[in-house]
Amino acid sequence: MLTDLILMNSYFSSDFKLAILGGGQLGKMLLYETRKFDIQTLVLDPSPEAPSKIAANHFVQGDLMDFETVYNFGKQADVVTFEIEAVNIEALEKLQAEGITVYPSPQTLRKIQDKGVQKDFYTEQNIPTAAYKRFPNLEALRLDLTANQMSFPFVWKSTQGGYDGKGVQVVRNAEDLNKIIDVPCIAESMIPFKNELAVIVVRNPKGEVKSYPVVEMEFHPEANQVEYVICPARIDEQVAQKAREVATKVSEAFGHVGLLAVELFQTEDDDIIVNEVAPRPHNSGHYTIEGSYTNQFEQHLRAILDLPLGETESKTGAVMVNLVGEEGYTGDVFYEKIEHILALKGVIPHIYGKRETRPFRKMGHVTIINSDLSEARKIAEEVKNTIKVITK
Amino acid sequence: MLTDLILMNSYFSSDFKLAILGGGQLGKMLLYETRKFDIQTLVLDPSPEAPSKIAANHFVQGDLMDFETVYNFGKQADVVTFEIEAVNIEALEKLQAEGITVYPSPQTLRKIQDKGVQKDFYTEQNIPTAAYKRFPNLEALRLDLTANQMSFPFVWKSTQGGYDGKGVQVVRNAEDLNKIIDVPCIAESMIPFKNELAVIVVRNPKGEVKSYPVVEMEFHPEANQVEYVICPARIDEQVAQKAREVATKVSEAFGHVGLLAVELFQTEDDDIIVNEVAPRPHNSGHYTIEGSYTNQFEQHLRAILDLPLGETESKTGAVMVNLVGEEGYTGDVFYEKIEHILALKGVIPHIYGKRETRPFRKMGHVTIINSDLSEARKIAEEVKNTIKVITK
Repeated sequence: MLTDLILMNSYFSSDFKLAILGGGQLGKMLLYETRKFDIQTLVLDPSPEAPSKIAANHFVQGDLMDFETVYNFGKQADVVTFEIEAVNIEALEKLQAEGITVYPSPQTLRKIQDKGVQKDFYTEQNIPTAAYKRFPNLEALRLDLTANQMSFPFVWKSTQGGYDGKGVQVVRNAEDLNKIIDVPCIAESMIPFKNELAVIVVRNPKGEVKSYPVVEMEFHPEANQVEYVICPARIDEQVAQKAREVATKVSEAFGHVGLLAVELFQTEDDDIIVNEVAPRPHNSGHYTIEGSYTNQFEQHLRAILDLPLGETESKTGAVMVNLVGEEGYTGDVFYEKIEHILALKGVIPHIYGKRETRPFRKMGHVTIINSDLSEARKIAEEVKNTIKVITK
Repeated sequence: MLTDLILMNSYFSSDFKLAILGGGQLGKMLLYETRKFDIQTLVLDPSPEAPSKIAANHFVQGDLMDFETVYNFGKQADVVTFEIEAVNIEALEKLQAEGITVYPSPQTLRKIQDKGVQKDFYTEQNIPTAAYKRFPNLEALRLDLTANQMSFPFVWKSTQGGYDGKGVQVVRNAEDLNKIIDVPCIAESMIPFKNELAVIVVRNPKGEVKSYPVVEMEFHPEANQVEYVICPARIDEQVAQKAREVATKVSEAFGHVGLLAVELFQTEDDDIIVNEVAPRPHNSGHYTIEGSYTNQFEQHLRAILDLPLGETESKTGAVMVNLVGEEGYTGDVFYEKIEHILALKGVIPHIYGKRETRPFRKMGHVTIINSDLSEARKIAEEVKNTIKVITK
């Protein structure tokens, strides 16, 4: 207990070092918080132009999947964390075995990194999730279809490396099958749902656990793309309560330390089932920077450093809009009409600092805060229809 | 107009460069916002361990009062601003003459940097302020006292370089006179006041102007030190209205561009008179980071870049407590019981990143947010009584 207190105190303006695997926008926003607490940081990222490059105390360019690179990088720190799941787990396990604190734990990451393993874990733990089957390759899946062991439609997911909608495909017929690649995969039942929801849960090593209010992911009616993240979700209080309970159960089942973003479906029958999770700050929690008592990045830091967790309630209604590259533009980015959206009430843009735009690349996000949520939603639509991420 | 739009757009993820004179905590917090907007920055500060060092794109160590240093530094940028008043104004004037945008303007800074000139300006502009007289030195002040042209008590202020209560002294008798130094000064009437208030006003080059709600500076009953900054001030709506009007008048009289923090007295008769101003982000506006729709640092950036100003209203009640070094401790800083305050509702510490503490040195601040302001005030007292800035 005494050593606990000494350790805690040593984070602030001290020689304590936090290593962060990944230097993208999530890492960049996490760095604001390490600066606020004056915690020294090391960042590893393969890109020499990573958004996290300049605000870290020490930046290392290197491959996040390479054992030696990750091990040697982590070895310099007191605590290691990550902002992306695609990192070398063996290196994290070795660091942990040698006494370096790694949060979220490599054991949890192993259960999450492979979507087949993740689904098996939910089954074992009685956590509601869509029915599924694992396949070692595309051939095995085809055989099942031929043998009528399964039928169209279903949701195909690559077990590894899916990100931002990549590695996920709705398969409605034999033709759709041609769009999918030959990798280990799962096939999931399609669940008719009313809403896609998300709950961010935070847990520290002491087992203190808190959940943020439920957010709603509102999709574009035609394109299958999240357009708005809305907090709080416009759903019944009972459903919201159930969603937070299920999400908390997932965090506790993992014995997770840090943030866990739990994506959920609200079914036609108002059941809540788990879609998938991310063991880190998450796009669905960006609204917390302006909207919440404690933003998700500070919260992650509090959790992995075993500090008391912060309040998760909202200060005001919030809507988040992603800024993604327009189709048809690749090159040096230009934020057309950004000055117009700055004139709208409660509009705060976050520009991630990527020089080059590409179609659908996440270049930033915009938060709209307002005590009246429906007003925030209206302004969000105006933002969405005004700013364009194009090239000069 | 067209060139305006092109210029505006070029701030974000572009080659545009903002130079900031001073790399202390105000500069550090301003850098969070330049990172959020992905604006390239250059920082000049005399200290190799300045808090702004790591998050700037380019850090230069040098003397802020040296003409050549400031000129050569500013010459590399498109827009120059400052986070401290004690900078070489002649260099700023030359930069401006050569077409570099300098905001706030050197002309305004010249009127503010010297407190005698500042007071004369208020008189010319019919801005209410305490009666005063300027003296070239201590001898001239003594002569006036001897000749009964003025009498005890009065407030002595050095016209140059005052900061954080330095260069200000209440002189009640001949003995107090011995505490003051022989520099150009002003002697001000002592105004019996109910409250010390502050209003932050922001104005952009187009002349768009907004003011933040009035904050109240609550002093320690014995020590003459601000203990709490409270937003909104617990005063009558009419008085608050008047305070915002007076502060706005000051900003407009200067034709100011950027933030202007206006410190005010609420007299026994509920008059509002101007104490002094700071043309930059200010301690009395730190609560805006968590409390306001637009934080003061983002707002300053919007103003000096001629972007639309952000909403100034509050999301929630807020109280700010400064973290200053305890008396009797000098050396490597240790934030005793910081983990205890993190467990309190709505408590967000900001650690500036100074390695060494000294008595009364500003080492950080803590914001307490709560929808119930009296609850925030109570928690602020608990924070104040818990955390101690000492040495290891």
